[in-house]
Amino acid sequence: MVKILITSGPTRQYLDPVRYISNASSGRMGAALATAALQLGHEVVIVSGPVPTVYPAGARVISVVTTDDMLAASQEWFTECDGAIGVAAPCDYMPQIVETEKIAKTGEPLTLQLIETPDVVATLGQTKRDDQWVVGFALETNDRRFRATVKLEKKHCDMIISNGPIAMDSDVNDVELLDTAGEVIARVKGTKQKVADVLMTEIDRRLIRKTPATPL
Amino acid sequence: MVKILITSGPTRQYLDPVRYISNASSGRMGAALATAALQLGHEVVIVSGPVPTVYPAGARVISVVTTDDMLAASQEWFTECDGAIGVAAPCDYMPQIVETEKIAKTGEPLTLQLIETPDVVATLGQTKRDDQWVVGFALETNDRRFRATVKLEKKHCDMIISNGPIAMDSDVNDVELLDTAGEVIARVKGTKQKVADVLMTEIDRRLIRKTPATPL
Repeated sequence: MVKILITSGPTRQYLDPVRYISNASSGRMGAALATAALQLGHEVVIVSGPVPTVYPAGARVISVVTTDDMLAASQEWFTECDGAIGVAAPCDYMPQIVETEKIAKTGEPLTLQLIETPDVVATLGQTKRDDQWVVGFALETNDRRFRATVKLEKKHCDMIISNGPIAMDSDVNDVELLDTAGEVIARVKGTKQKVADVLMTEIDRRLIRKTPATPL
Repeated sequence: MVKILITSGPTRQYLDPVRYISNASSGRMGAALATAALQLGHEVVIVSGPVPTVYPAGARVISVVTTDDMLAASQEWFTECDGAIGVAAPCDYMPQIVETEKIAKTGEPLTLQLIETPDVVATLGQTKRDDQWVVGFALETNDRRFRATVKLEKKHCDMIISNGPIAMDSDVNDVELLDTAGEVIARVKGTKQKVADVLMTEIDRRLIRKTPATPL
């Protein structure tokens, strides 16, 4: 049994006290992975942005709002975990200035200056100990496999899962699991629980139990 | 018995296939108003943005995503309704350009040009027939009552309800109901269902049954 950190759901980056930038990540894939990990006997800590999804009762859930919050909580909890799965979709841009009062409409266009947020999975990947592993998710609309392998390397992941926008706020998913060499080691399509079960079995075998790999 | 249109929840304005601007409106106040209206024997059509809230079974629910969608659906359904309650928090800004592919991070700041969306309640207010009424909600962080009266007039509402950001994604609310003269005719604080029951009773008495008003 090991302890696994799962980041899940979206984050929010507020423009003012009412409006924010976010995405439709529902936390369902994170919940499904947590369920699969618990069933394999592992301990699970979920760092989650605001979602309507109910996480499995056996998992410890840390609620966050912004990407900075998600990074801080993930770094703190990762120190006592054996590995991390980054399935969250944290906002990667935030407004440079956050207004303290609701921006009033003027009839004129509004120019918003956005800056990049810190990369949660990349930070975990770059700072992981030799005995820790990190699995990332890459959500891309085009050049999916190529962009996933770029992210895999840049974020120092031990595996990366490539999926498309179909994953967002959906009950189903369609993914490819890539190893550090960028080779596709599994393809799964179906309900998020089915996909999570297969992915977690692969993570368990290859990264936790370190069973030698067999070609697909 | 009359037929009431309720707009509810947030809308989303996408920057690209993944990221959007939105707000934390949960649809709970809309659901509570629908419940109160159904209990008074009225028919209810809800035009709602994406929310996790379950609306009462007796209401007809039209699901929309963007503010343009919400306006189009509301205008279509309003023609066969006696009145409308605009409790939705539609995005009032949208990106001037919506990218068809996910915007890739470059390490550089991103400038986003936002333009105003059409105003759903104002459009209903301006185009209502003499036998129709419109009730708006104003969510402001400061100068609440003043800004509510400005909105009341600008949007041609028959009543406006002023509330603050406490209303967002919460089980409770704290509101003032203002008549066309800008006079406070009710103040209610408590669960959203309690607030909705009082507001719906006032709407029923003053706008539907047209019982002469009594001073507060």
